[in-house]
Parts: sequence; C-alpha cells; structure tokens
Amino acid sequence: MSCFITFEGPEGSGKTTVIEHIKNVLSETHDIVKTREPGGIPISEKIREVLLDKEHSMDGRTEALLFAASRRQHLVERVIPALDAGKIVLCDRFIDSSLAYQGIARGIGFDDIMAINKFAIDTYMPDLTIYLKLDPAEGLQRIKDNQRENNRLDEETIDFHKKVVLGYNKLSELYPNRIKVVDAAQPIDKVVSDAANIINNYIQSRGEE
Amino acid sequence: MSCFITFEGPEGSGKTTVIEHIKNVLSETHDIVKTREPGGIPISEKIREVLLDKEHSMDGRTEALLFAASRRQHLVERVIPALDAGKIVLCDRFIDSSLAYQGIARGIGFDDIMAINKFAIDTYMPDLTIYLKLDPAEGLQRIKDNQRENNRLDEETIDFHKKVVLGYNKLSELYPNRIKVVDAAQPIDKVVSDAANIINNYIQSRGEE
Repeated sequence: MSCFITFEGPEGSGKTTVIEHIKNVLSETHDIVKTREPGGIPISEKIREVLLDKEHSMDGRTEALLFAASRRQHLVERVIPALDAGKIVLCDRFIDSSLAYQGIARGIGFDDIMAINKFAIDTYMPDLTIYLKLDPAEGLQRIKDNQRENNRLDEETIDFHKKVVLGYNKLSELYPNRIKVVDAAQPIDKVVSDAANIINNYIQSRGEE
Repeated sequence: MSCFITFEGPEGSGKTTVIEHIKNVLSETHDIVKTREPGGIPISEKIREVLLDKEHSMDGRTEALLFAASRRQHLVERVIPALDAGKIVLCDRFIDSSLAYQGIARGIGFDDIMAINKFAIDTYMPDLTIYLKLDPAEGLQRIKDNQRENNRLDEETIDFHKKVVLGYNKLSELYPNRIKVVDAAQPIDKVVSDAANIINNYIQSRGEE
C-alpha cells in the first residue's frame, strides 16, 4: 500500500529527528523512502543553490516559482516512482511550506501560491501531513543553541517566523483531515510517539479500506 | 510614454536582427531599452544555466516553472524600472514563448501555462507583440546554415517546431489586438520595415490618447 506522508513545521521544530525515528519504526513492517527536497536530484540541487545564494536580492514570486520547480522535479524523480512501487514516502517539507512561508509570511497570497504548486504537484497532494507545532521564538533558540549554520531563510526576522507559524496554524484549520497537529514543545520522545501513533492509525485505517 | 513591446517567433525567424534595427530606428526619437531574458540579471542567468544543461532529463512542468521564475526576476529588475522611467522596452521573447513552447508544443496545456505566467508577470502583459511568422523547416534550415551552436531546445524534432508555430498561430488568433503578425519569409529589409510600421502606428495611436 503506497502512502505519501509529509512533515511540516517552523525552523527548529525537530522534523529531522522525528522523521528519522518514524522511519526506523515503520521500516520493520513497511517499505519506506525517506526524502526531502531537493533530495539529491541534480536539477533540484541546482535550483536550491540559486535559492540559498545570499549574494543577490530575490523577488518573492521568483522564490516561490523556484521552490515549485524544485518540488516538481523531486516529485517526478523520487516520490512518484516510490509510490508507484507501493512504498510509504516520508517527505520533510512539501506544499504546505510554500503556502506558509511564501503565501502567508511573505504576503504573496494563499490562492496564488496554491495555484503554482497545484501546477507543480498535479494530483499528488500528501495523504497525511504531520505538523510539528512550536512557538517560533523557541524554534529559533534551538537553532542558535545547536550553532547550526544559518542560511538565507533562517536569517529572517522573528516577525517573519511568527507569520510562518500563523500560516501553518491556518492551514491545519483549513485541512483538518489531512494535517494532524503534534505539540513539538513536548520532550522529543513524546513528540515522536505522538507522530508515530497518528501515522499508525492512518495506515491501519487505509489497510481496512 | 512608456511602452512594453515583445518579439516572438520560432527559432531562426530573425528576431535578433529585427529588434536591433527597430532599436536603431526608434532611438532617434525615443528612450529605448532592448533586452531579452535572462538579460544579464544574475539570478535569471543562473536559472538559464539550469534550463540549458543537456546533462539531465527535465520534466516539462519543471521547465515551465523555471522559465516563469527567470521571467519574473528579469521583469522586476530590468523591465519594470525602465517602464517606470517612461522608456520603450523591446523584449526578445516573453509570455507567448512559454504558451507556444510549453503550453502547446509540449502539451502541458495553455490554461496551466497561462496561470503560472500570470503569477510571474502580474499586471505586466506586453502592450504590443510582433510575431515573426515563419515555416518551421525554413527557420531550422537558417540555423543550420549559420552553423550556430545548438542548445537543448534547438535539438527538438521538426514536429516539435511545427507545434510551436501552430501555437503561435493560435495565440495570434486569440489576441489579435495585442499580437501583430509579420511575414518573416520576406527579405529581411521588408520584415524590418513591416515591423517598424506596426510599432510606429501603435506608438502614434498611444500618443494621441
């Protein structure tokens, strides 16, 4: 049974750790592909280089179109073949990142960002999305504590990150059936087990169809 | 009086020569900016490198999104400032290239390509478009004769180039007020004078508003 599961949340919400744990748990019983954009796809990697370049000032709509282009190629080369082979795909960030970051936080507009992303993903909307909900100040503090090297997006103001979280909250209200909220302020073990429970319940319900 | 004029047509239709002549004629009486995507805009140049790379097989929708991204950045950095300064902008290829090449020739669909390009250009549709109409076989023969180095798009089959021309023909029927057809099979002097006449008439009519 193929299944397309995405993970979303602000910077520092623990997506990487959660996905790694979920992969280890599910791998015992299912065929899993863990990925994230650009995911080693050469064309998407090249687009990422353009996106993360700090040298030139990029228009918000250019940025949104580049994210959609990178998403498309990664989807075609990595996600669709795995789903066609009956695998469970775990993807770190997907369409909701663009809706929250570009659509809402950058103010380009939800409908416009949805339109170009619908063009990119066609019928491949995620079956299930785990939203790791966290106060943006807490997320940024975690990044600082880890001394991770900042890229262009991390360097946005705290106001921008607050808007991102407001965007995610709005999305989780708009799509309650697809997007499930996990409190990412909890200890990481609890975050992982909450996410695992949601995913297991979903896979079981799909198996009973 | 600002004015946004684009030039369209299949490979080998003589756009470069025609635009150069038009620029020289109009420069005597108007402030002209001649440009083409990516037009030296660093972000657009980088996107072009990804587009013209022959190494990797690119999905048609990825290609369309990259063209739209490059268009957006070039528009914001080059075209809009020139129009705001009251100049006449002559642009080699714009939205109609994407509609003809990706929308129709690649079969992605006119409406979908229009949607992502409307996102890219917002309200900046060209005021006037000169379509250099030419039999695709003739255009390809001209390229061959000039021994110009082929890029990835030139290497498409003759069938693809026929579809491009069918696409342009359809566009000129859909937008007869904006898109004016010039027979590019004529001697180059006649092609240039036909295009110049259309542009002069348009500028005069705008001046009389």
